[in-house]
Amino acid sequence: MQTKILKAKTLIEALPYIQQFSGQTIVIKYGGSLMTNEELKPSFAQDIALLTCIGITPIVVHGGGKEISKWMNKVGKESRFVDGLRVTDSETMELTEMVLSGKINSEIVAHINHAGAKAVGLSGKDANLFQARKLDSTSDLGWVGTIDMVDANLLTTLCRQGYVPVISSVAPGQHAGETYNLNADHVAEAIARGTAALKLIYLTDVDGLLINQKLVHRLTLDAAEALLSHPDVQGGMKPKLASAISTVRGGVGSVHMINGGIQHAVLLEIFTDTGIGTMITLDTGEVR
Amino acid sequence: MQTKILKAKTLIEALPYIQQFSGQTIVIKYGGSLMTNEELKPSFAQDIALLTCIGITPIVVHGGGKEISKWMNKVGKESRFVDGLRVTDSETMELTEMVLSGKINSEIVAHINHAGAKAVGLSGKDANLFQARKLDSTSDLGWVGTIDMVDANLLTTLCRQGYVPVISSVAPGQHAGETYNLNADHVAEAIARGTAALKLIYLTDVDGLLINQKLVHRLTLDAAEALLSHPDVQGGMKPKLASAISTVRGGVGSVHMINGGIQHAVLLEIFTDTGIGTMITLDTGEVR
Amino acid sequence: MQTKILKAKTLIEALPYIQQFSGQTIVIKYGGSLMTNEELKPSFAQDIALLTCIGITPIVVHGGGKEISKWMNKVGKESRFVDGLRVTDSETMELTEMVLSGKINSEIVAHINHAGAKAVGLSGKDANLFQARKLDSTSDLGWVGTIDMVDANLLTTLCRQGYVPVISSVAPGQHAGETYNLNADHVAEAIARGTAALKLIYLTDVDGLLINQKLVHRLTLDAAEALLSHPDVQGGMKPKLASAISTVRGGVGSVHMINGGIQHAVLLEIFTDTGIGTMITLDTGEVR
Amino acid sequence: MQTKILKAKTLIEALPYIQQFSGQTIVIKYGGSLMTNEELKPSFAQDIALLTCIGITPIVVHGGGKEISKWMNKVGKESRFVDGLRVTDSETMELTEMVLSGKINSEIVAHINHAGAKAVGLSGKDANLFQARKLDSTSDLGWVGTIDMVDANLLTTLCRQGYVPVISSVAPGQHAGETYNLNADHVAEAIARGTAALKLIYLTDVDGLLINQKLVHRLTLDAAEALLSHPDVQGGMKPKLASAISTVRGGVGSVHMINGGIQHAVLLEIFTDTGIGTMITLDTGEVR
Amino acid sequence: MQTKILKAKTLIEALPYIQQFSGQTIVIKYGGSLMTNEELKPSFAQDIALLTCIGITPIVVHGGGKEISKWMNKVGKESRFVDGLRVTDSETMELTEMVLSGKINSEIVAHINHAGAKAVGLSGKDANLFQARKLDSTSDLGWVGTIDMVDANLLTTLCRQGYVPVISSVAPGQHAGETYNLNADHVAEAIARGTAALKLIYLTDVDGLLINQKLVHRLTLDAAEALLSHPDVQGGMKPKLASAISTVRGGVGSVHMINGGIQHAVLLEIFTDTGIGTMITLDTGEVR
Amino acid sequence: MQTKILKAKTLIEALPYIQQFSGQTIVIKYGGSLMTNEELKPSFAQDIALLTCIGITPIVVHGGGKEISKWMNKVGKESRFVDGLRVTDSETMELTEMVLSGKINSEIVAHINHAGAKAVGLSGKDANLFQARKLDSTSDLGWVGTIDMVDANLLTTLCRQGYVPVISSVAPGQHAGETYNLNADHVAEAIARGTAALKLIYLTDVDGLLINQKLVHRLTLDAAEALLSHPDVQGGMKPKLASAISTVRGGVGSVHMINGGIQHAVLLEIFTDTGIGTMITLDTGEVR
Repeated sequence: MQTKILKAKTLIEALPYIQQFSGQTIVIKYGGSLMTNEELKPSFAQDIALLTCIGITPIVVHGGGKEISKWMNKVGKESRFVDGLRVTDSETMELTEMVLSGKINSEIVAHINHAGAKAVGLSGKDANLFQARKLDSTSDLGWVGTIDMVDANLLTTLCRQGYVPVISSVAPGQHAGETYNLNADHVAEAIARGTAALKLIYLTDVDGLLINQKLVHRLTLDAAEALLSHPDVQGGMKPKLASAISTVRGGVGSVHMINGGIQHAVLLEIFTDTGIGTMITLDTGEVR
Repeated sequence: MQTKILKAKTLIEALPYIQQFSGQTIVIKYGGSLMTNEELKPSFAQDIALLTCIGITPIVVHGGGKEISKWMNKVGKESRFVDGLRVTDSETMELTEMVLSGKINSEIVAHINHAGAKAVGLSGKDANLFQARKLDSTSDLGWVGTIDMVDANLLTTLCRQGYVPVISSVAPGQHAGETYNLNADHVAEAIARGTAALKLIYLTDVDGLLINQKLVHRLTLDAAEALLSHPDVQGGMKPKLASAISTVRGGVGSVHMINGGIQHAVLLEIFTDTGIGTMITLDTGEVR
Repeated sequence: MQTKILKAKTLIEALPYIQQFSGQTIVIKYGGSLMTNEELKPSFAQDIALLTCIGITPIVVHGGGKEISKWMNKVGKESRFVDGLRVTDSETMELTEMVLSGKINSEIVAHINHAGAKAVGLSGKDANLFQARKLDSTSDLGWVGTIDMVDANLLTTLCRQGYVPVISSVAPGQHAGETYNLNADHVAEAIARGTAALKLIYLTDVDGLLINQKLVHRLTLDAAEALLSHPDVQGGMKPKLASAISTVRGGVGSVHMINGGIQHAVLLEIFTDTGIGTMITLDTGEVR
Repeated sequence: MQTKILKAKTLIEALPYIQQFSGQTIVIKYGGSLMTNEELKPSFAQDIALLTCIGITPIVVHGGGKEISKWMNKVGKESRFVDGLRVTDSETMELTEMVLSGKINSEIVAHINHAGAKAVGLSGKDANLFQARKLDSTSDLGWVGTIDMVDANLLTTLCRQGYVPVISSVAPGQHAGETYNLNADHVAEAIARGTAALKLIYLTDVDGLLINQKLVHRLTLDAAEALLSHPDVQGGMKPKLASAISTVRGGVGSVHMINGGIQHAVLLEIFTDTGIGTMITLDTGEVR
Repeated sequence: MQTKILKAKTLIEALPYIQQFSGQTIVIKYGGSLMTNEELKPSFAQDIALLTCIGITPIVVHGGGKEISKWMNKVGKESRFVDGLRVTDSETMELTEMVLSGKINSEIVAHINHAGAKAVGLSGKDANLFQARKLDSTSDLGWVGTIDMVDANLLTTLCRQGYVPVISSVAPGQHAGETYNLNADHVAEAIARGTAALKLIYLTDVDGLLINQKLVHRLTLDAAEALLSHPDVQGGMKPKLASAISTVRGGVGSVHMINGGIQHAVLLEIFTDTGIGTMITLDTGEVR
Repeated sequence: MQTKILKAKTLIEALPYIQQFSGQTIVIKYGGSLMTNEELKPSFAQDIALLTCIGITPIVVHGGGKEISKWMNKVGKESRFVDGLRVTDSETMELTEMVLSGKINSEIVAHINHAGAKAVGLSGKDANLFQARKLDSTSDLGWVGTIDMVDANLLTTLCRQGYVPVISSVAPGQHAGETYNLNADHVAEAIARGTAALKLIYLTDVDGLLINQKLVHRLTLDAAEALLSHPDVQGGMKPKLASAISTVRGGVGSVHMINGGIQHAVLLEIFTDTGIGTMITLDTGEVR
């Protein structure tokens, strides 16, 4: 009986968070170990299903670089990168869309549905959810795009009826027949802004922002800006931190960077006091 | 981190129950130790608040015999009982209503609101929620009544907006100025039928139905009926079991008798596999 | 036939008022002779029922000082007052709430329902309708409070469905377990402001404001302010007039002080040209 | 003050009727002295306005034989009748529609609007509210029609928004360009059935049904049928009574025949116990 | 088959216009040859029916001077004009209303209904859709009025349900019993402003604005103003152009003057690139 | 001008069909030349966009066998068929889903959006729109499935907001991780039944049903059944005709088999009197 009561207390511990976040939108950038670790996928799907049960509106965004490379290989085509961006000719774009929208997306959708929620797979093409234009670049990267416009009406329609949108980072251009490959982090940010989300959570391969080998759990905008020039903030972390700052400035309540390789990472970050990763937010009063 | 993950898993364990019970009404007869144990009251209130967060509609019904006796004493009036029923002259009825609607009810309401939900205290008088007539009896018991009619419209209005009705067992009669004292178990049953509730849970002073000193966790209607003539079913348990049987026949999904003295008794009964008390239900397929 | 036609003409006389007030909220502070005169109670209830039929939204607010004193007596406790305010220790507060919410409130509710409307009894505790904090005072008055916050959502929900809220002047504090006793006039004023009422009507023991022994029927804000220093405005009338002025400034269309001892006082004040008491309003153009 | 209180009591007397009829539709066949007595017109309009204020949905239907004859004269055309029916050639039909829809109808509409309600003038042509076919007859009566079909959707749309439909007895035929002149009593009956009205009230030139020189106030269907062969039931009264019987059989709550020449005839019939005319209803339990 | 495909392409050509105008209101002043040419009437009605099918909300406004004169003759009354305005004594007004509301209006309604839409005939009297006051004039013109106020609520109610309002240029005055005869062009303009229409289309007897014997298809506000002093803009065209300019300034998207004598004139003007008449609009970017 | 008027008449010719089909659902099985002819794709998209403009709800269903074979080739995998059904091992299924949901589906969606409508790409996985189980077969065909269940809620949500669902013939199984390849004709039929569609249109490679070398334009159920044994009905046409018969029996208004290679085939079939293909319907009265 005592074990049972402890379990009940765990449910009750989550109560203040549930009450605070109910009715809000949380955008989750799917990524990191989730892409490859088959055990983590159902646990992530359960987290999403639980969020919908307690009145939170989750929206999932994903890319899928490694899987694209694997399929490039299969059809005997070489992957080529410039400054970390995949050079995307028409054939590559065709395959990219097939992998993102026809494989990774549908797999995430199926997992979430299996956990008892109702997911709907989308890309920027669906009802022109978002549109892209060619990325400015010194070298021609082909169909690599940047977001031009978000029209969140379809998301509103679906979320109001309790569906969970799962969005791949592919978008139409302005002209007929154009398809662009986008950076999924940017798509997640644009969706979070376009839906005035309470939280944007990046599931990554690292635990969060490490300063002097210690995980930083919570950062106000001021503190975050000061850290931009810190020697420990380098590589991919620097643009990520900068983007988190501008996202919070743009009206999203908080941006979280957490390790997607931890089981139930999303629940842990949302429903515990310190969370498990790094949270950037307007001020210190903000609840996690 | 491992402790945190275990907590997350506890939330996930509740997921199938949440998904199954979401959108349903659960009527809870408040009683037993809750009436006197100040520590249990906030824990009960949290259970109710959690239910509302996950889309369940709880309705609380209560009586309050002991407190009435205490106040009879205070004003120097003797309590008199016939066959366990309080003989209720006009002065007693006046005090009974003051205790039930003006003290116990408002205390439960305040506790639930403090837990973050929005409770609204009611009696049968509010919008004529339920009406009573004089109980047939060999000796004149005064204003002791029996339920005549339930009009659940007010409950529908409140529950749809997320309010938690807390109902005292006092009702108007057909004529102006009449007030009746009702058996709170009967009120709970009538409300459960009138709202087509999924569950009716009695919080009592015992663990449930004990047969051969073992707690019976689950009973189908057939098994329950067979037990009516069992020597271990006696005293107050016999009419309680009979009423549970007829309640389930009347369309309520299941009737539960549990020990209100256990912390978080409501959550434990609803969100664990075996529950903590006795559940009478139509057939064995029914989820707890 | 001629008598019948005269009756029809009386109905028609009310037509312009009905057309003007339809869809509006009128807050009525129940008090004066109504508290003790059993004959007036059903007539008051009929007035309320009629208002609901013609599309007006009435909200009733009440206190009940004399009845509290009577019950203090019954339990052998002395009433003590400082500057006209009841010193309210915990035991007194307990009894006060029982009398206000469990007796007077439920009696008004029953009368209105008997007249064919659907009343619902409330206090500040229900869905935290209003909250209080301790009244600043030189001597410690115990649980005497002042209004801190009104959350009219529950009233909106109920009124939209045609229910008549009847509100007792008891409120929760900020901390668990706190209950405060409030001045019912102040509660009525706060509710009138919080619902942007068209009218706030005080039912009192006097005919209204008497200047040079003549009843003043109508006062603009300017005239009302000038009268504040008039020698005939004294005792309880001075703060009442001052509060009426600030209530109208706060957006309530008009404040009325009428004699609750006159049968159908509410209808007479609302549906006749001069009314029966004193009306304070923004300017002279205002219809009664 | 005593006069005022008596007036308030008159309002209260109407309360049970208002409560009973609220939300119901009452179809009123405009006719009798109202057509010519300029003083009665505003009083009739006030009755209609009052009904709308108390939640009743009035629908007015009218014909206008005498006015048509007057205009036939003006344009130098002779009125010709066969069995009391106007022989209606195309020119007569053109004028008939102008008089009914362009003169009488618009006058009633203006009066009701002046009383503060919102009337909308209609004929069968508007949204094909009702359609007609040629009346079977031994002699050719031209464009004299009988009702074929009622489509009450437009009425529902208007009534839900609080508008009062005023309907002239003109209807389109099945083919383009056809217009028929209808018996307004029949139109009123068809509209009452088509809207499942609670009451159908004929305003006529007589006080109601007189048997042995005494006005019959209330008739059940059985009694009404027995009277069909009574020697005092003759002339126009016989078909009127027969039609009333079949109308009540068809689901309309009651049919009333009253003297439109009495001021506020509609209110008097609806809001007094005996009424002023004859009411045919299913059984004696029915409230007037 | 080739003919069929050409037809399909015609439908597709209209697609961009349909997509752009869907959900918008278009006010059409009925007039010109339509009044007398029986062949054009059904074709006009089909145009209106088609507009409703593709999500456009048409509102038709009409006058009817010639028909009034014809009926004046019939009843032996002479028509008298001052500055082109009919001197309207009470008898003339009575006849005017009969002709406009009881004849022309009902004929247009019948035609539109025959084409499969649902038209409802109205005048300013219906729900006080618009009100008039006496036109200022040096000589007394009797009941010639000018628009004072538009209350478009009735139009909103009807249009939302898919009904097509057909409005005659007759209006009530402020006092009981007053009826005014209005200029139908002005009524159309007031309705277009009051409904924030996308387009106001005048069906006239000429092709549009001719400058140097060439039809001007499209005019921006600036160009239109410059033309006001052009020698080719004279007679009735000058005030028409001035009113079109102020209408567009008042928020209506565009004003069109087209020849109502061309079959399907409305469709041709709306759904072809150059249109068939003259369009005055804010700037050149505007789609026809 | 004459050409313009002819165009307007073409629009008007479509009016009766538009009026009849407005508010109805039409399911279109995309296929035939459309799959490969780049010129036809935009013309098909325009047809769909036009349907949405005139109040019709189109739903598009597609498969894509040839494209799958092409990609099997690209990754060096041989296509194997048994009785015309593709043997579908896990790798084949993975590629099949990528081609159908990630390539063909997204291409159709983009074309429709470019024509100005709002298409949303779906498969059976989205919100479990439809579920499959393994097809019974003598030889093991792997992941070839048959439809088990349709849950049209997502379609209702999308269509009500004006979105056009485009559905690929891929479905989840009952267990986690299962994906089935379905016959798109069967999916279209199941969707048509599940949405109670007015019409189900198959776009194929032939003109329709040819009997004695003549195209049959219209078939009642009786005639269709008689033809099942006709020597000209053979090959794929026999099961197609049988399925059309059972579809109409199942409540779909009509089934059409038309040549998708004709420009604007959908519009031509729906909006012309004889249509361009074969229509099977309940009886002869049915409008095309």
